[in-house]
Amino acid sequence: MARILPLRGEGVVLSVGDDAALLRPPAGEVLVATVDEVVEGVHFDARFTPADIGWKAMAVNLSDLAAMGARPLWALVALAFPGETPARRILGVMTGLAACSRRHGIAVVGGNVSRGPALSLAITAVGAVPEGRALTRSGARAGDLLLGSGVFGDAALGMLRGAAPALARRQRRPTPRLLLGRALAGLARAAIDVSDGLVQDLGHMAAASGVSAVLEAERIPLSPAYRRRARRLADPLSAALSGGEDYELLLAVAPGDLPAARAAARRVRTPLAVLGRFEEGSGVRVVAGGRPLEVPPGHDHLRAPAPPGPSARRRATRRAAPPL
Amino acid sequence: MARILPLRGEGVVLSVGDDAALLRPPAGEVLVATVDEVVEGVHFDARFTPADIGWKAMAVNLSDLAAMGARPLWALVALAFPGETPARRILGVMTGLAACSRRHGIAVVGGNVSRGPALSLAITAVGAVPEGRALTRSGARAGDLLLGSGVFGDAALGMLRGAAPALARRQRRPTPRLLLGRALAGLARAAIDVSDGLVQDLGHMAAASGVSAVLEAERIPLSPAYRRRARRLADPLSAALSGGEDYELLLAVAPGDLPAARAAARRVRTPLAVLGRFEEGSGVRVVAGGRPLEVPPGHDHLRAPAPPGPSARRRATRRAAPPL
Repeated sequence: MARILPLRGEGVVLSVGDDAALLRPPAGEVLVATVDEVVEGVHFDARFTPADIGWKAMAVNLSDLAAMGARPLWALVALAFPGETPARRILGVMTGLAACSRRHGIAVVGGNVSRGPALSLAITAVGAVPEGRALTRSGARAGDLLLGSGVFGDAALGMLRGAAPALARRQRRPTPRLLLGRALAGLARAAIDVSDGLVQDLGHMAAASGVSAVLEAERIPLSPAYRRRARRLADPLSAALSGGEDYELLLAVAPGDLPAARAAARRVRTPLAVLGRFEEGSGVRVVAGGRPLEVPPGHDHLRAPAPPGPSARRRATRRAAPPL
Repeated sequence: MARILPLRGEGVVLSVGDDAALLRPPAGEVLVATVDEVVEGVHFDARFTPADIGWKAMAVNLSDLAAMGARPLWALVALAFPGETPARRILGVMTGLAACSRRHGIAVVGGNVSRGPALSLAITAVGAVPEGRALTRSGARAGDLLLGSGVFGDAALGMLRGAAPALARRQRRPTPRLLLGRALAGLARAAIDVSDGLVQDLGHMAAASGVSAVLEAERIPLSPAYRRRARRLADPLSAALSGGEDYELLLAVAPGDLPAARAAARRVRTPLAVLGRFEEGSGVRVVAGGRPLEVPPGHDHLRAPAPPGPSARRRATRRAAPPL
């Protein structure tokens, strides 16, 4: 399996095969490290191909690096699966993992394979960012603009039965916004990636920064596929506001830095839109046509009305969100 | 839960709570990184207290750092458990994890909590070792002495029904040989930690180094509790040779460096014994009274006769051993 994976890369002195990897950190940079786990029946189901599973397990980790403005360096992968798992399924997972790793330039330097009652992948990703340029959740200030990359809600609609391929792909093969994160490192004041849902993750950012956020619903970028599908839903904005798993970035940028941020996004060919602003206070307000839009109180997804995706899976994902 | 864990430490700029941790690597050192996962029903059973589970999950990772001669810096923990798990069980796991982390000076800088069908912990540990002093498996040369720390076989006997507390403790609360690893970094030529079994891990070391190993059975250090228990077994040496999970270190040391190695071990109060030697060739020979001792062919634990511990669990652990 090791031959499928990219085992070499910047700073890799000794990769998979000894008791541990030896890694030379880049000079003048701080390291960025994150861990995420995906579990069969909780984070993915039978609609995911093995390669989708491997891709997504890596992509969600890379998205965390993107949100810190880091470039990817090294990953360590703990894979567990039931004894009766066909070898071709494991090979498929490895192939997807390898494809996402190569695409985004991260080397797999450590691994562990274990028996377990369900297929699961726990991945630690390590990146680097120049000293003083890392993006955190806590730097937004009142007066900053709220920017968002790409489009929102596709991943949630991609879980619906008979979802258009464009939507399903966004659920199963998310693109971490690494280039944008790096382009805005040292320029944006704060960032977070949208895994739990636009409103919920914006709430995390506002709380960490000690400010409130105003989200203008009409400004939320939606894909053509989203608009087509959402017309048939009772609440066409729900997936974009609360769906989660889009792995887009939300950023706080000082108004004077907006032109530079737009230029940086154009250079890396990533859509970037103004979605609202940060103000004194706390919490998230969603407004449409200048009037408040009703959003479930506190937007705690454990209690919120079920989004359009399969609610049990989705709720399980959310329960999984708080870090240790 | 975060309050239980040691979240701060050397180089920790930003710990648990953002999209990722920010870590400043120590100057002039290379990083050492490893991942290991433990899964309920595979690596531990109901005889393990929650705190034992947490301790051991961290200890097995620290043992890999020890085998590279590294000092521990940072850990990232992916914890999964079934929805119905009592909170006190999770708290117990965290408490054991925290105790082992504090004891050995590693900071927990990242975490992920997920639902899953069984309790599992996938931990990535990162350490550092001065440039050029890391121990690997591959540096042993013909003529080197084979040294081993501590005693062997206790952990395997600790899985037997009614095991003496001293043996059970070695199974459930292994001590990573971090001080010894660091003391011998730059002095020993090669090292490995014994997770799969003395003969098997010695085989890994010999193969990686391109030499053969001669293990003198009478020289294997055994604890008083081991000797008492082993008297009642059909093959009293089996647990020491093949039992695994002792997390002792095996080291290759040039004969001229033996006095320095012994002095270093004394300074860190860790028993260190000569167990044999490395020669030209390949494979592992176990000798007793100068005559070859029969050891299962190739010592492939997937096919080897069941060791004294519960064989299903043990075999599952072994199948889990090969890295990605």
